[in-house]
Amino acid sequence: MRSDTREGAPVKAKRVPRAQREQQMLDAAVRIFSRSGYHAASMDEIAEACDVSKPMLYLYLGSKEELFAACIRREADRIISAFASAADPSLDPGEQLFRGLTAFFGFVAEHRESWIVLYQQARAQGEPVVEDVTAARHEVVTAVTALLRRGIREAAGERTRADGEDTGPDRGEAAAMAQVIVGAADSLAGWVLDTGPEPPEETARRLMSIIWIGLEPRLRGARYEG
Amino acid sequence: MRSDTREGAPVKAKRVPRAQREQQMLDAAVRIFSRSGYHAASMDEIAEACDVSKPMLYLYLGSKEELFAACIRREADRIISAFASAADPSLDPGEQLFRGLTAFFGFVAEHRESWIVLYQQARAQGEPVVEDVTAARHEVVTAVTALLRRGIREAAGERTRADGEDTGPDRGEAAAMAQVIVGAADSLAGWVLDTGPEPPEETARRLMSIIWIGLEPRLRGARYEG
Repeated sequence: MRSDTREGAPVKAKRVPRAQREQQMLDAAVRIFSRSGYHAASMDEIAEACDVSKPMLYLYLGSKEELFAACIRREADRIISAFASAADPSLDPGEQLFRGLTAFFGFVAEHRESWIVLYQQARAQGEPVVEDVTAARHEVVTAVTALLRRGIREAAGERTRADGEDTGPDRGEAAAMAQVIVGAADSLAGWVLDTGPEPPEETARRLMSIIWIGLEPRLRGARYEG
Repeated sequence: MRSDTREGAPVKAKRVPRAQREQQMLDAAVRIFSRSGYHAASMDEIAEACDVSKPMLYLYLGSKEELFAACIRREADRIISAFASAADPSLDPGEQLFRGLTAFFGFVAEHRESWIVLYQQARAQGEPVVEDVTAARHEVVTAVTALLRRGIREAAGERTRADGEDTGPDRGEAAAMAQVIVGAADSLAGWVLDTGPEPPEETARRLMSIIWIGLEPRLRGARYEG
């Protein structure tokens, strides 16, 4: 690796630690990929956007394919963290879901480019990138499933009828419920990006008004007020 | 075009009308694409699977890319028809939605290969195939939106409160609701294919139990019984 530092030249810009420099490279890459698409984006363009040489970009993050995969992993981790960090086990499952969804829609609103790369471009790249996206989605589904299982357990007392039959969901049904919620949230996030921004709480409340209180009560005027 | 008919040879197999022959070619193509993936699938393999010569396959349906696009358009039309043909305007919106979803899940269960090609492979092909899939999805969303608008209109009377405020959904909200339903249905269809078959009514009832009556009542034991 050659040194770019010349005697007497300002060295400040060169002293950025590697980890931080890599994050800057990823920021630039996500921006360029989301604008130009994977195929049209060039390593030259990305190197220029983060103000490093192309050899340094290759040295730090590998080929264009590897760079794209690194972008996907980082953005997927960020979305999972946004959702998970909003969770507060002291809250009831509905409130927790509302907060998680608000954090998720907030992330998508703020990181529009991450979403485009993750949801529109990553799927078009085939394996192994699709595998990373699938794994990330699975992680979110698992978190939602756990949340719903707690709700199912907590409501068990309310469900015990005189004849002993429990018509409520069982623990297995929580997985299907989680798929519904995650699929609905993905779809609604895309809709908000297409139709125009709104506060993330508002988007989360829309979704909760359907999945939590239900469309039938919603048509009659009920609204999720969390 | 050369004639394959030799004097004295049985001609029965050659007398299939073009439209019918094309459908057979598309059937074979969907089967091969779903198994092998777009890139690995070969025109040789597809021609063999539908028992025609490769030149005839090219003559009727064009290049591999054009053949794939034709598969996507046919399968998308089929899903739209399955959903739409279940609609009966004399039913209330909830019942109609339940029937549409049952038809949709029934189609996916019976045409697993169509679903794989449409949902997993088509998205990976870039434009113009992605455009066809997006247009098909838009058509379903539009049908669901119309259904919900009717529900919103019909429930308006129930929502008029003493102070005149209507806290119910407005016509614009129907579009967001439709996105939620379609996204949830896609996600649940994929889940059923991954985890194992169940009667389509059962899948539709799962979804209705969440989106129509709501998770909160569902946790307490309420269930959609349509």
